[in-house]
Amino acid sequence: MSETNQNLTELSSLGEFGLIDHLTKHISLKQKSTIKGVGDDAAVIRPSKNKDILVSKDLLIEGVHFDLVYTPLKHLGYKAVIVNLSDIAAMNGKPTQIIVGIGISSKYSLEAIEEIYAGMIKACEVYNVDFVGGDTSSSKAGLYISVTVVGEVDKEKITYRKGAKPNDLICVSGDLGSAYMGLLLLEREKKAFRADPNLQPDLSGNDYLLERQLKPEARVDIVRLLEEKEIVPTSMIDISDGLASEVLHLCKNSGTGCMIHEEKIPIDQVAFDLAKKFSIVPSVAALNGGEDYELLFTITQGDYDKIKDETDITVVGYMTDEKEGQQLITNDNQMIKLEAQGWDALKKRDIDV
Amino acid sequence: MSETNQNLTELSSLGEFGLIDHLTKHISLKQKSTIKGVGDDAAVIRPSKNKDILVSKDLLIEGVHFDLVYTPLKHLGYKAVIVNLSDIAAMNGKPTQIIVGIGISSKYSLEAIEEIYAGMIKACEVYNVDFVGGDTSSSKAGLYISVTVVGEVDKEKITYRKGAKPNDLICVSGDLGSAYMGLLLLEREKKAFRADPNLQPDLSGNDYLLERQLKPEARVDIVRLLEEKEIVPTSMIDISDGLASEVLHLCKNSGTGCMIHEEKIPIDQVAFDLAKKFSIVPSVAALNGGEDYELLFTITQGDYDKIKDETDITVVGYMTDEKEGQQLITNDNQMIKLEAQGWDALKKRDIDV
Repeated sequence: MSETNQNLTELSSLGEFGLIDHLTKHISLKQKSTIKGVGDDAAVIRPSKNKDILVSKDLLIEGVHFDLVYTPLKHLGYKAVIVNLSDIAAMNGKPTQIIVGIGISSKYSLEAIEEIYAGMIKACEVYNVDFVGGDTSSSKAGLYISVTVVGEVDKEKITYRKGAKPNDLICVSGDLGSAYMGLLLLEREKKAFRADPNLQPDLSGNDYLLERQLKPEARVDIVRLLEEKEIVPTSMIDISDGLASEVLHLCKNSGTGCMIHEEKIPIDQVAFDLAKKFSIVPSVAALNGGEDYELLFTITQGDYDKIKDETDITVVGYMTDEKEGQQLITNDNQMIKLEAQGWDALKKRDIDV
Repeated sequence: MSETNQNLTELSSLGEFGLIDHLTKHISLKQKSTIKGVGDDAAVIRPSKNKDILVSKDLLIEGVHFDLVYTPLKHLGYKAVIVNLSDIAAMNGKPTQIIVGIGISSKYSLEAIEEIYAGMIKACEVYNVDFVGGDTSSSKAGLYISVTVVGEVDKEKITYRKGAKPNDLICVSGDLGSAYMGLLLLEREKKAFRADPNLQPDLSGNDYLLERQLKPEARVDIVRLLEEKEIVPTSMIDISDGLASEVLHLCKNSGTGCMIHEEKIPIDQVAFDLAKKFSIVPSVAALNGGEDYELLFTITQGDYDKIKDETDITVVGYMTDEKEGQQLITNDNQMIKLEAQGWDALKKRDIDV
């Protein structure tokens, strides 16, 4: 991380309190529920009437969740917030505050941490979320980011993983598999760069896939859309581990089977073409690739008319009785058991691209 | 971590979901505000009427905040929760829920993580707090624990670092400096053990100091006591970095000066004796040593009668006008400027013991 650049500021020159003051001085608060943000022993939040509070936490760990070789620090900060906001959306809620913990090796400069914070604060601006607290500490090695998100939801609209019933329609927002194809592309270029450091990366035409991997968004807009359409999903989860794994979570929690149609799975054309080029079945990237952060939810058949013209929501199948199992109808009309290979497994498979 | 013991379970044998299921299966929920604990995208909390929500987060990082050479994993889990509960107490609130993030190297066995969880769940039982969520991930090296605590407080009773006025009395709970003396003792034995691995550690008679360092408590009982006595402190903070540093925080936030009497600082006899033996001025351990997790707070003079017979609360000085500065009256009646050396500085000083 540019240790050789003499213009960068060493972290130790600021001290812990100086560092926190420096990083948080540009934060502005917008949520009326935020009574006190950074600067005391705890943040103070005044819940809105008739709302429940949602709290979730996700860790991002260097070498496990991200690779600094191709991850810009600002994007990393942005993504660390997004993956948490997505968990609140998955409960049919709206994120309101975040609290951030960062463990960072002293080899990083102040400017590097500023980039991470800039990405986090940007995400807060985009999603109208308040940054209300942080704990920044040195680590002996590696970068650790722990974000906790607080959100709120109408008591009557909380959507759990459980709650789906047979015949409910299974819907996904956006498209799937693009983040995984973006990852494969970055991994390919990393390998090529290692083989020949003079090589220029060949990422042209794939901006969308890179953005899906490096700077994803949380589908809080879908939560708003469902509210406008007066739909309360019967179950919901966000897609962080691939469609297959998440559908199985809904089935397990709801006590249902499911029937997913491979041909219905929404895949972006660029992702589709790249998958073909890499000799990957495109739907496998959608089913088992991860990090799309789209929403997967079920609705009653009665709500179908309300969403049938929404281009950003796709019905990919329906729930069935538990005894019918979890099934996938393939493009060539085979019925196979839906299994969660998970994106960890995909990652570990050494794909020659 | 006993890598050679063939009876231990490798983490990879369970997988992420199996691990979380395994670790959280014994958790029971007691807070009526907890609507949903572990097992969905977010925990759901239903705030009590007229209460504000408090949220805080503290990281514990291996090699920075703890040394596994002498820290039992169960105590570490307990302490990771306690340091967070203490932040809620410092706002005059009561902790209600925690969410835990653990990054752990695959060299650890399942049994090691179970110990950490056992300590966390124990702390939850002792403090009547619900364990409502967790994210457990592998790390490339080192153990990272990030706990987020949620608490509640009557709107009218929130106590910030700001709010103290000149002439308010400065109070501390319990005694100070013991946790630091416990640390010095453990560091001495670690050095001796490294010099001669056959040496038995000499920790006799110092159980109290070791417990203060390895298994501290959060003074939620003091929050309850203040409530019974109908006292709302004018300012409050918990003592994690030493009395001097924390008093200066209250002064800075409240815009006051202060006068602290060295002779009033409560120091346990065992800590006092050990400090003398180690050629350390005992009050220096209290002023600049850290991790006592006692509460430092100010009350109006009118409230003095309510606490004057409380053996667990000591008045150590009073607030003054800001222009009078932050002062310490030493045992030999010198007035010196109160400075925050901080416990990091103390730690780095190589003390020959």
